[in-house]
Amino acid sequence: MRLTALLANQNQFSLEGWRERIRKELDNTVDFWLKYSHDTTHGGFFTCIGRDGKVYDELKYVWLQGRQVWMYCRLYRTMERFHKPEILEAAKAGGAFLRKFARVSGGSGGPWKCAFCLTRDGKALKVQRTVFSECFYIMAMDELSRVTGDKDMQLEAEQMMEQVIYWVRVDSSSLGRPQLPGEVPTNSMAVPMMLLCLVQQLTEGRGQEAAQKYGDLASWCVQQILQHIQRDGTAILENVSLEGAELPGCQGRLQNPGHALEAGWFLLQVSGEQQDEELQRTAINKFVELPYQDGWDKEHGGLFYFLDVDGHCPTQLEWNMKLWWPHCEALIAFLMAYNQTKKPQLLERFSQVYEYTFSHFPDAKSGEWFGYLTQEGKVALDFKGGPFKGFFHVPRCLYMCERMLDDLLANSD
Amino acid sequence: MRLTALLANQNQFSLEGWRERIRKELDNTVDFWLKYSHDTTHGGFFTCIGRDGKVYDELKYVWLQGRQVWMYCRLYRTMERFHKPEILEAAKAGGAFLRKFARVSGGSGGPWKCAFCLTRDGKALKVQRTVFSECFYIMAMDELSRVTGDKDMQLEAEQMMEQVIYWVRVDSSSLGRPQLPGEVPTNSMAVPMMLLCLVQQLTEGRGQEAAQKYGDLASWCVQQILQHIQRDGTAILENVSLEGAELPGCQGRLQNPGHALEAGWFLLQVSGEQQDEELQRTAINKFVELPYQDGWDKEHGGLFYFLDVDGHCPTQLEWNMKLWWPHCEALIAFLMAYNQTKKPQLLERFSQVYEYTFSHFPDAKSGEWFGYLTQEGKVALDFKGGPFKGFFHVPRCLYMCERMLDDLLANSD
Repeated sequence: MRLTALLANQNQFSLEGWRERIRKELDNTVDFWLKYSHDTTHGGFFTCIGRDGKVYDELKYVWLQGRQVWMYCRLYRTMERFHKPEILEAAKAGGAFLRKFARVSGGSGGPWKCAFCLTRDGKALKVQRTVFSECFYIMAMDELSRVTGDKDMQLEAEQMMEQVIYWVRVDSSSLGRPQLPGEVPTNSMAVPMMLLCLVQQLTEGRGQEAAQKYGDLASWCVQQILQHIQRDGTAILENVSLEGAELPGCQGRLQNPGHALEAGWFLLQVSGEQQDEELQRTAINKFVELPYQDGWDKEHGGLFYFLDVDGHCPTQLEWNMKLWWPHCEALIAFLMAYNQTKKPQLLERFSQVYEYTFSHFPDAKSGEWFGYLTQEGKVALDFKGGPFKGFFHVPRCLYMCERMLDDLLANSD
Repeated sequence: MRLTALLANQNQFSLEGWRERIRKELDNTVDFWLKYSHDTTHGGFFTCIGRDGKVYDELKYVWLQGRQVWMYCRLYRTMERFHKPEILEAAKAGGAFLRKFARVSGGSGGPWKCAFCLTRDGKALKVQRTVFSECFYIMAMDELSRVTGDKDMQLEAEQMMEQVIYWVRVDSSSLGRPQLPGEVPTNSMAVPMMLLCLVQQLTEGRGQEAAQKYGDLASWCVQQILQHIQRDGTAILENVSLEGAELPGCQGRLQNPGHALEAGWFLLQVSGEQQDEELQRTAINKFVELPYQDGWDKEHGGLFYFLDVDGHCPTQLEWNMKLWWPHCEALIAFLMAYNQTKKPQLLERFSQVYEYTFSHFPDAKSGEWFGYLTQEGKVALDFKGGPFKGFFHVPRCLYMCERMLDDLLANSD
């Protein structure tokens, strides 16, 4: 009994230490983006921000515009210390920029197609033949409508959601990607993950009606994600056939541990809501533990970006780099798994990922986090924001972990 | 005078040593691809080949199919020890596969559009909205027609060349890339380089008529390449505006030293043919010396893949990796520059690049070269062939260097 008490004390101590550091990092990260990323001339956010906060490219990436609006609103809405006018104003300005410029007119995608990248003054520069820009647009509009009470905006998010569902589940041809005879229709994990995330966004706190409206889609997403458990349950593969079979070649053998871990905590959220213990077990064993086991670099620490399930060398040049976001997803996943189960082993994993993450990614000199390290853990790209790194993974991780630690500490007394 | 004689002796010694090693490497490389890359079932070549020769993916990349056909034919046609039936047969089989499967029908690109990637049995899997698959198809068909005497094939190459010229110089809309309001039309160095390479291919040894037919295009390509000299002659930039002005942001500041060095020796070939001393000086000073000065890693050796002319961190995750092909291009460029000018400094540069290249890229255990090293020179991806590495840069470099060394040694007696 004394040992248990000791361990409990030690845990308590760690939880408090982690929460303190995480809270500081979150404050610091919010400050960084409030200070450096706002374009007060044309609206929207700069996302290409150098180590010391200087904008090194003025292009505006729509994924990152949407994510920043969403993150500001979520912080404003749910954390008292961020319920500040400057955060609300920044979110509204970002939302206005998106509504004015994100959609591309005249293309084959119809009235809902969004650009991937805009010039500083909002002219479309690049359009992807995928649904992700639209998805982050939806996240932004829905969360913004929650803080402003703008029902039109919520409707707009739901209408765009219908279009995305149509593209994904009925007919993607208007996205403009030609159907080619050698192509095998693929269940790529990103798509059901993204849609599941949107269902959670659109239904949160909106009661039975909303839950019913998207209930079928949510089940479909979960099933599609579960199809990625392959090799008799020993591996998560990033791409499978529509029937859930393994695909040939590199594409079929590809593993993305960070992505699997992210899917893990998405599933844990569902299992938590639905009190589904089997789903919880699957989420933890297959989508949290396995990718960690396979993806953790035993020599240098940290999670690999890509792996090949048969041990071939991936063809992605960056396969062995340590990126910030898989570590963010791993922190959320292990803390959520621990919070739901209280199994000490899961808190140990969290601790291990925490040690690597906080000793490698934060920039003590200029704030925020580096995003891209070599396999050995050296900073390889020193900017704080780039075409794929914005105000999203770092603050979302810190925000979610802080809240979970609040919860654990509140319940440990 | 004795010093001069000593240096001449030393040079002679180095030239012979280099030629011997290079000849062995070329033999070894040809053997590797003859042994491991031929698909005797469906035709064409496997290009995803692991460290020890094992095929790890059966996809067939059209760029690499075309390049392999070209390289086999060039070796067969111009080097006696490769004038062997098995090389001719392999080239013919690769050419037949390309003619049968490379073109995609029914798309918006018209009858000449080629796929980027095919399944093992030749079904189109991916189409790029660029002209490069078509360009390597032209290289393959023209060179193959030279060894087989097939005039139809030569005509086919020339007809496809007309289509490529139309896409590049008249109207690219049928490539399928939508025109977007934020897009600035760009002179990307790859395009005039590729076309200049094709002009040299199509006109070689075909006399005045062919030279005249493509004369205007050749001049245009040279002018387009020279537009990339920027910042008052102090830097080569990868992308400029159609008027030859610097573009804003990362795209405008991007440098690709290996690509500039490759452009350098393309220009040296033109200056050699046309006895144009000014072009020769420009080629050496701007496209060979400058990219080497800027691109060579003073700490670890080797050429960076990408740089930003203002010293910002590039956004390409692989920017600081050492790839095999820029080193191949540098070897050709410095040896050609030395061969044309006999300036000892250029041979010293060749020697420095040679030392790095031959101590880092060749695989002493299983043959052929690694393609992708970390900044520090460690092998990061250990395959011998991948989606962008085939039977091309290594053998082209070895082949051209061997011939130049032959030439230098023959004339040094």
